[in-house]
Amino acid sequence: MQKANIGHARSYGADEITARTKALFNQVFEADASVYFVFNGTGANVLSISAATQSYNAILCADTSHIYNDESSAPETFTGCRFFPLPANSEGKIEPVTIRERLIRSGDVHYAQTKLISITQSTEYGTLYTPAEIKAIAELAHENGMYLHVDGSRFFNAAAALDCSLADISSKAGVDILSLGGTKAGMMFGEAVVVFNKDLNQHIAYKHKQIMQLASKTRFIAVQFEAMLHNELWRQTAQHANKMAQLLHSVLHKYAQVKVTKPVQANAVFAEIPAAWYEPLQEHFPFYIWKDSTHEVRLMCAFDTTEEDIIAFDNAIAGLQR
Amino acid sequence: MQKANIGHARSYGADEITARTKALFNQVFEADASVYFVFNGTGANVLSISAATQSYNAILCADTSHIYNDESSAPETFTGCRFFPLPANSEGKIEPVTIRERLIRSGDVHYAQTKLISITQSTEYGTLYTPAEIKAIAELAHENGMYLHVDGSRFFNAAAALDCSLADISSKAGVDILSLGGTKAGMMFGEAVVVFNKDLNQHIAYKHKQIMQLASKTRFIAVQFEAMLHNELWRQTAQHANKMAQLLHSVLHKYAQVKVTKPVQANAVFAEIPAAWYEPLQEHFPFYIWKDSTHEVRLMCAFDTTEEDIIAFDNAIAGLQR
Amino acid sequence: MQKANIGHARSYGADEITARTKALFNQVFEADASVYFVFNGTGANVLSISAATQSYNAILCADTSHIYNDESSAPETFTGCRFFPLPANSEGKIEPVTIRERLIRSGDVHYAQTKLISITQSTEYGTLYTPAEIKAIAELAHENGMYLHVDGSRFFNAAAALDCSLADISSKAGVDILSLGGTKAGMMFGEAVVVFNKDLNQHIAYKHKQIMQLASKTRFIAVQFEAMLHNELWRQTAQHANKMAQLLHSVLHKYAQVKVTKPVQANAVFAEIPAAWYEPLQEHFPFYIWKDSTHEVRLMCAFDTTEEDIIAFDNAIAGLQR
Amino acid sequence: MQKANIGHARSYGADEITARTKALFNQVFEADASVYFVFNGTGANVLSISAATQSYNAILCADTSHIYNDESSAPETFTGCRFFPLPANSEGKIEPVTIRERLIRSGDVHYAQTKLISITQSTEYGTLYTPAEIKAIAELAHENGMYLHVDGSRFFNAAAALDCSLADISSKAGVDILSLGGTKAGMMFGEAVVVFNKDLNQHIAYKHKQIMQLASKTRFIAVQFEAMLHNELWRQTAQHANKMAQLLHSVLHKYAQVKVTKPVQANAVFAEIPAAWYEPLQEHFPFYIWKDSTHEVRLMCAFDTTEEDIIAFDNAIAGLQR
Repeated sequence: MQKANIGHARSYGADEITARTKALFNQVFEADASVYFVFNGTGANVLSISAATQSYNAILCADTSHIYNDESSAPETFTGCRFFPLPANSEGKIEPVTIRERLIRSGDVHYAQTKLISITQSTEYGTLYTPAEIKAIAELAHENGMYLHVDGSRFFNAAAALDCSLADISSKAGVDILSLGGTKAGMMFGEAVVVFNKDLNQHIAYKHKQIMQLASKTRFIAVQFEAMLHNELWRQTAQHANKMAQLLHSVLHKYAQVKVTKPVQANAVFAEIPAAWYEPLQEHFPFYIWKDSTHEVRLMCAFDTTEEDIIAFDNAIAGLQR
Repeated sequence: MQKANIGHARSYGADEITARTKALFNQVFEADASVYFVFNGTGANVLSISAATQSYNAILCADTSHIYNDESSAPETFTGCRFFPLPANSEGKIEPVTIRERLIRSGDVHYAQTKLISITQSTEYGTLYTPAEIKAIAELAHENGMYLHVDGSRFFNAAAALDCSLADISSKAGVDILSLGGTKAGMMFGEAVVVFNKDLNQHIAYKHKQIMQLASKTRFIAVQFEAMLHNELWRQTAQHANKMAQLLHSVLHKYAQVKVTKPVQANAVFAEIPAAWYEPLQEHFPFYIWKDSTHEVRLMCAFDTTEEDIIAFDNAIAGLQR
Repeated sequence: MQKANIGHARSYGADEITARTKALFNQVFEADASVYFVFNGTGANVLSISAATQSYNAILCADTSHIYNDESSAPETFTGCRFFPLPANSEGKIEPVTIRERLIRSGDVHYAQTKLISITQSTEYGTLYTPAEIKAIAELAHENGMYLHVDGSRFFNAAAALDCSLADISSKAGVDILSLGGTKAGMMFGEAVVVFNKDLNQHIAYKHKQIMQLASKTRFIAVQFEAMLHNELWRQTAQHANKMAQLLHSVLHKYAQVKVTKPVQANAVFAEIPAAWYEPLQEHFPFYIWKDSTHEVRLMCAFDTTEEDIIAFDNAIAGLQR
Repeated sequence: MQKANIGHARSYGADEITARTKALFNQVFEADASVYFVFNGTGANVLSISAATQSYNAILCADTSHIYNDESSAPETFTGCRFFPLPANSEGKIEPVTIRERLIRSGDVHYAQTKLISITQSTEYGTLYTPAEIKAIAELAHENGMYLHVDGSRFFNAAAALDCSLADISSKAGVDILSLGGTKAGMMFGEAVVVFNKDLNQHIAYKHKQIMQLASKTRFIAVQFEAMLHNELWRQTAQHANKMAQLLHSVLHKYAQVKVTKPVQANAVFAEIPAAWYEPLQEHFPFYIWKDSTHEVRLMCAFDTTEEDIIAFDNAIAGLQR
């Protein structure tokens, strides 16, 4: 980033670094895509929705999804659209059969018209949609005049875990528009919206500004993505985080009081632990209580989680047992 | 209405008929209420929501509700709020236990803050909330800093079926704001929003105009409500419609191919019928196909449904059997 | 309207009266138009804007216009768009040269993109755009990728005063979409949005419902328009109102203390009168104080204004002079 | 910023750096203020407006203001409010007398209710509101039940030029809410909304998230503000930029073809230059063409503008003259 801070540069994305990084996106995603840099994940998701909808449209998403539970009512306020949450399966994924049941009343003006499906990769449960699963949903969407959006705040972790390219689970799988996360992957700030379906380019540049997500000094976001995409740096850091999650999983396995509740596929571990452990553990290891009624917690591993961190966590639990 | 059409009158609700009718509302609802006349049911519901919420709020309603399934995305577009649909029970009602499960994350800025519960009376299944059931929900709402809205597009049918006063299932049961239906009760057009909780008066007069529901010739709506409320005319017409639904129920009972699916409590009858009957019956008796997969249809009786209509329907079915 | 109240009818505009009236619109407007019946003038204007814009667009209108001064913030709340008010000339009209000055920064994402021009016919000053003037503005709009909307809440008065057909100042003059007023022309309620440019049909049926302007019993609006359009009934009532305005003008001319301030071309008379007259006159003749600083009032003549009304007004002024 | 990047930290503003910086704001602004860090200037302005308004409100601002001309329709889309632009005087400021003329129709539901005045400091013309001028506007606002917002994207330049404290032109002058610019002052990204009037705290934390301006890694914005506010670093950099503008002014003065058009009070110089100079000058010195019809350009000096830059600009002009 210090490189980006030297010398004068044109503002609002008209600089060289930004242009260069956008070209890199096209190469990495093996597509003639459009790229819009934004500040945060909610901004990326709302920009994606706004590019794909009119205000009388509806969005289908998992009832567990971040976009439905953790972004206030930002999408409704900005786009006017309605959400129809679909029951996620035990792995936190929505299945084509569930989507199909909601494909009703097309053309009925009294019913908010379904236009977009949004899935999360990796999911809120830390699980993965395979390329084939994404393709199936994309086809279902397209057959019904709808678009497919992927909320990819942990997209790098997903590609690393699936051992595939970024294109395999986006452009090549029929995804129309992608929120690509940078912050959780280690960037100071910044996400990107990547548009694969050219239909969605019609309004997006105007909406980008309108939803307050156009940075005057775009180069500071671009340069971080450039570093991340160059030589697949993202894969190293994501693989590391995923590996730490596996390590954590094996540590938890030792304790009879702990029950791992979801498949550990990327960088998240979900587990039921004794409620009495919350306070002493959170003192040193902040984590999110996913479901208070069953004492299920979410433990996230990141690019900067170390083996020492995991060992310390193990020791902390061991200490609680005595 | 012809009376209202004679002579000059002040516009936008500042006329005598409107004033007189508002006073009549207070008497009938046994409360110091505010009344806003609107054009249609969606307008009434959106005005009610807008009076009770800020744009970062969420609304709880039954997943079967009209407000969630049949009013396009009007509430979101106008108020910016999110809906959290709750599973209705087998009678189409939402239960306190179901509401309580969604009373989470109060004060968490990432989560759309639940501020309003909306129930429908009579429900989309033609069933009834008793005064005690409404009170229980109202108390739950108020204990949690929320408001209770009733979508009463068939409110007169409900009060007639429950053999209670309009106040018993609104002001006296803790309802904060009510959409009172006129159109389905026989009016040419017009509904009313009745505000019982004075907190909700702060912005509503401005929102009334802003959502395009302020009629310049308000007296034409007021005069219809005056006729409806005077000497409880509403009760006669609603009782008649409810009675016709019972008659229809007993007619359907004769046919082995027909299965009545919901309790018949007000003016609606839900029944599974052979799909082959749709077309010949709908030629003379327009009805709504509620659930295509099970061939469930909704048969509504209205103020102007006659015994002859029911007999003709009976004959039509009989004719199909030969 | 009593005719429309007999028998059962399909709801939400699917009835025969509505179909027949829509056909009549096409005949009268000499165009293959789409017609949407709405409840009031603000609803008509907001529906028109919503059909022609995306949320990042801007609308040009006269700074004196009803849409800018008298419809709360309904257009912004529903469409998200910005208004750029243009200075009206001394006759309350906006001129092409004034419009041209605002045709700036096309394609600049930081600037709300101008997409719609809205003019009022007859204007807020009771003056008229000639067919040629409308054509000039329509051409300017179309050359710049914009649409032309006419707020015609007094459209019948305008056509009567210009002694032209309804088509001459709409379809034949290049107007893309028209708000056609019914309420001020004597209807109990109801306005119509008439779409001439087929581009604007893409979303409008959905928006019609979404902005809460779709009546379930549409036939009650349709039947009033049918009566109004049949044999040009509108022309008789509008000519009468316009004639009463001329009579009023000649009456006011007699009084030295009164200064008529705008050309009297349709059914409005603007005049500066002594402030001391406000109260005694308004007791019997409600009128609007247009500009308090100069004691300018607006006197509107309607379909039901009689010569006796004007004479009584004359006498009332005469009485004030003694 | 490298300091902020070391070690783990709580997200969404719950970290120590953020807490420390907020305390520093209170000290510097000599007030018990609330501080919300946001990503960019449009975000700061929209958050400020949303904290002070309901959707039926209107905002008064200069017709030259950034908020009205350069932020797309973001404020309308998010808040639903209307703008009433006021004519700026020759110095780009709005005067109390102009504001007073728009304080009309309070309580009239047909008129968007004016609730907020927004001024820019330094103005779009690079001029300054004195503390006394701000106080006068604040008093006018408060007497009429309105709030005063300052768009301070160049607030540091203003305070440096006025040789006063930040408090003198905000908390001590009656300002209710301030958008404090960081990006133009040299930060990589980040602005702050500073709330002085506690009434505006009611909803703002929720709106902060809802408008997509809550950074998960808030500390990276906070740490930049901490550096800027510590020991008044801002004053040095702003004084430098202002001094460069004076130097530029004196350079331009030498050329007969150049006419400086606005008082040079902060870091902007407005001048009419020959149109033929645009291209050769812009090759090395990007500037904005303010008004094409009069060839007026805006030349901004920044924290990193050097005397060498000014000399080079001088030489470039000299070269064009030969």
